Amino acid sequence: MEKWLKEDERIDRLVRANLDIIQSPTVFSYSLDAVLLAHFANLPYNNRGKIVDLCAGNGAVGLLLSEKTQSPIIGIELQERLADMAQRSIQLNQLEEQVSIIQADLKDATKWIAKDSVDVVTCNPPYFSSPVTSKKNPNPHLAIARHEIHTNLNEVMAVTSDLLKMNGKAYFVHRPDRLIEILEAMKRNRLAPKRMQLVYPKVGREANILLIEGIKDGKETGFRVMPPLVVYSEENTYLPEISEIMYGSEN
Amino acid sequence: MEKWLKEDERIDRLVRANLDIIQSPTVFSYSLDAVLLAHFANLPYNNRGKIVDLCAGNGAVGLLLSEKTQSPIIGIELQERLADMAQRSIQLNQLEEQVSIIQADLKDATKWIAKDSVDVVTCNPPYFSSPVTSKKNPNPHLAIARHEIHTNLNEVMAVTSDLLKMNGKAYFVHRPDRLIEILEAMKRNRLAPKRMQLVYPKVGREANILLIEGIKDGKETGFRVMPPLVVYSEENTYLPEISEIMYGSEN
Repeated sequence: MEKWLKEDERIDRLVRANLDIIQSPTVFSYSLDAVLLAHFANLPYNNRGKIVDLCAGNGAVGLLLSEKTQSPIIGIELQERLADMAQRSIQLNQLEEQVSIIQADLKDATKWIAKDSVDVVTCNPPYFSSPVTSKKNPNPHLAIARHEIHTNLNEVMAVTSDLLKMNGKAYFVHRPDRLIEILEAMKRNRLAPKRMQLVYPKVGREANILLIEGIKDGKETGFRVMPPLVVYSEENTYLPEISEIMYGSEN
Repeated sequence: MEKWLKEDERIDRLVRANLDIIQSPTVFSYSLDAVLLAHFANLPYNNRGKIVDLCAGNGAVGLLLSEKTQSPIIGIELQERLADMAQRSIQLNQLEEQVSIIQADLKDATKWIAKDSVDVVTCNPPYFSSPVTSKKNPNPHLAIARHEIHTNLNEVMAVTSDLLKMNGKAYFVHRPDRLIEILEAMKRNRLAPKRMQLVYPKVGREANILLIEGIKDGKETGFRVMPPLVVYSEENTYLPEISEIMYGSEN
């Protein structure tokens, strides 16, 4: 398998989807957040939809989504190195016919994908706002993935809304401390919040991951808060529900 | 004890606070929501604060709060019959020096209580918006308590904000399906959301109660989602955490 790898990369397993993924500890590795996002998203199972994953990173979300639909999935990733890793993972899994990756700034998404044409957009955006004074990760790959250096919440929502058809669905994973901003940015960009799920690291702890679904030009009623997800047992092992999401079984 | 009671009223026990409360199945009985609201609210323990409970009903929240503070607590309740029940419960528990009830429309709250003078406002408002066509409870006491007939979310927030000092705290219990409206009304009325807690009826079920804290003129950062509360076991008994909140112990 080494022919697929560069520098300090390794091949990890996306067990649930029975796929391989190229990762690098110094450039980018997918996290639980990507797996939860792919799990949370409702996709058309058929092959007639169009699905876009913004801020695609090394392509984990797109690869995981391929298990849930026969529709084409297009990832957009700004960083050349990450887009290249994603491209090689797509080839490694022989998913070229369904999954593709575009190395581009998401601001330019509608140069590549027609406006108002997409059924589902997923996005695991940078979580941290990035004022000049904030302490960024000294690793530029990780800093760009985690901090709002090249994009921000409102831009992500604006691009998502531009891409989606009327009644198309948007799925975001983010941090609960930005919920207020997230809802305001959704409203500003015609994405009606429909479902939210909160993820708690352990029993008795505050939520640290937020999943939210919006519908473009949807009605502003019927908002639902889904059952809570708790990730770890007191022994720091995955609880059964998370194990099922990660591995497709409870071990 | 019968001298305290009218018609079909009975005396129930607020076990946690070691207090009695006058209830009536046909007029008003407090619910778990009131207990959770009183538990969620942070109060100054000393006697130098001023606490107001809007939409006080039969006074359950105010009575429960008296356990947590030595400061005066003023309830405001529109319905004469409910305010009268609350007044008798205050006397029954000999809490007249700390707890009082004003029978008034909350629109008139600032005629009774000075603007910008209150440390903490709590409110368990009517949950259901009330368009002309909606199916209301045929019992007028219950209809007014549950439907936005005489007040609405924005008015509740406006009055709360008028009453609160700068950095005073507001606590609301409501339904999660109205979260978006709640956050918008808070923003419109200078109440910065600070903490939210979601209550789920059982493991694996959607949230059906929402608790939220706002700070008047507070900063718009640092929003937190507190640990989830799950109410019932599969056998429909209270889970230990709820039992502790209700009764002060796990049985």
